[in-house]
Amino acid sequence: MASGGPEIEQLIQLLARLPGLGPRSARRAVLHLIKKKDQLMIPLSAALDRAVLAVRSCEVCGNVDTQSPCSICADPRRGDAGMLIVVEDVADLWALERAGVGAVRYHVLGGVLSPLDGVGPDDLSIDMLIRRAPDYREIVLAVNATVEGQTTAHYITDRLVGSGAKVTRLAHGVPVGGELDYLDEGTLSQALKARTEI
Amino acid sequence: MASGGPEIEQLIQLLARLPGLGPRSARRAVLHLIKKKDQLMIPLSAALDRAVLAVRSCEVCGNVDTQSPCSICADPRRGDAGMLIVVEDVADLWALERAGVGAVRYHVLGGVLSPLDGVGPDDLSIDMLIRRAPDYREIVLAVNATVEGQTTAHYITDRLVGSGAKVTRLAHGVPVGGELDYLDEGTLSQALKARTEI
Ligand SMILES: [Zn+2]
Ligand SMILES: [Zn+2]
Repeated sequence: MASGGPEIEQLIQLLARLPGLGPRSARRAVLHLIKKKDQLMIPLSAALDRAVLAVRSCEVCGNVDTQSPCSICADPRRGDAGMLIVVEDVADLWALERAGVGAVRYHVLGGVLSPLDGVGPDDLSIDMLIRRAPDYREIVLAVNATVEGQTTAHYITDRLVGSGAKVTRLAHGVPVGGELDYLDEGTLSQALKARTEI
Repeated sequence: MASGGPEIEQLIQLLARLPGLGPRSARRAVLHLIKKKDQLMIPLSAALDRAVLAVRSCEVCGNVDTQSPCSICADPRRGDAGMLIVVEDVADLWALERAGVGAVRYHVLGGVLSPLDGVGPDDLSIDMLIRRAPDYREIVLAVNATVEGQTTAHYITDRLVGSGAKVTRLAHGVPVGGELDYLDEGTLSQALKARTEI
């Protein structure tokens, strides 16, 4: 039978769809929410309502923010540095920001080339990247060290020929097969400092 | 710096307070919510709003439901069986229901006796249990197999002398030191079938 009525059951099922939570941990999470109704459940409910209304994708870089252009694209000091870091996903952008890589800008591809999954260049924001490139001195391809990530980097490097920007990649230091978002911040920071020209 | 504005940052911080989620998995959960805005974020927001309004504690047994008395206390067939299962926590009640233990009723203590933490009999719903006991043929003390759980069971057994109800405990089969909510459903079901008189 359902635990505690349809409202609770539905909440458990939705939470169980979050990465890192399964049905059992979702049930524990819901019981925790109910126990901490005033301190946690009501504030979380309000925060979700606000985020649903406020969150949007940056039309320039693909970052997630409550404004578009996002706060990074809107910050003129970040343009001055002339460095544009290309990432697969918003999670990677956040990881680099947490690593404190400095006054840079980003471009979120929204994935990687993957012919087997039917993901081609038009499914990623590559055209937009090519248009942005002339405004930057250096384009750092900070894609994951996976086969698809490296294929995507080669493709972008070819497309960027003639843009005038220097194209670099993160230094090895990123473990082969590893994903940026799981790296510790020191490793990420070092890998950016020791980046090499492609 | 904050990732994506104050609304997103606050959502991450609140989700990180759920059991089983830390700051990193909360960030991944929020990005997942944003990506699946229509399919997951908006339904979750609505489900939380509904649950905040609907959820209450059962004034009879301490279960969490959207009605009080809860659907278990309100079901007359469950009273006929004459079995009242005493648990520490709502999570344990849900675990027993998932195990399909049958047409029983429950009593949620809300914790265990723990003098070191300042938890005495008046902090648990023991008086209420004593008042309910005469309506039942058998009281099953399904508390965790921890020191505090067993101390609580002894205390309750003493208080139930003269109630007319037979007092039993779950069969060994519950691993010593183990917590009910982590057990597989077959073990729980077997432990209830082989329960012994105290
Ligand atoms: Zn942006
Ligand atoms: Zn009840």
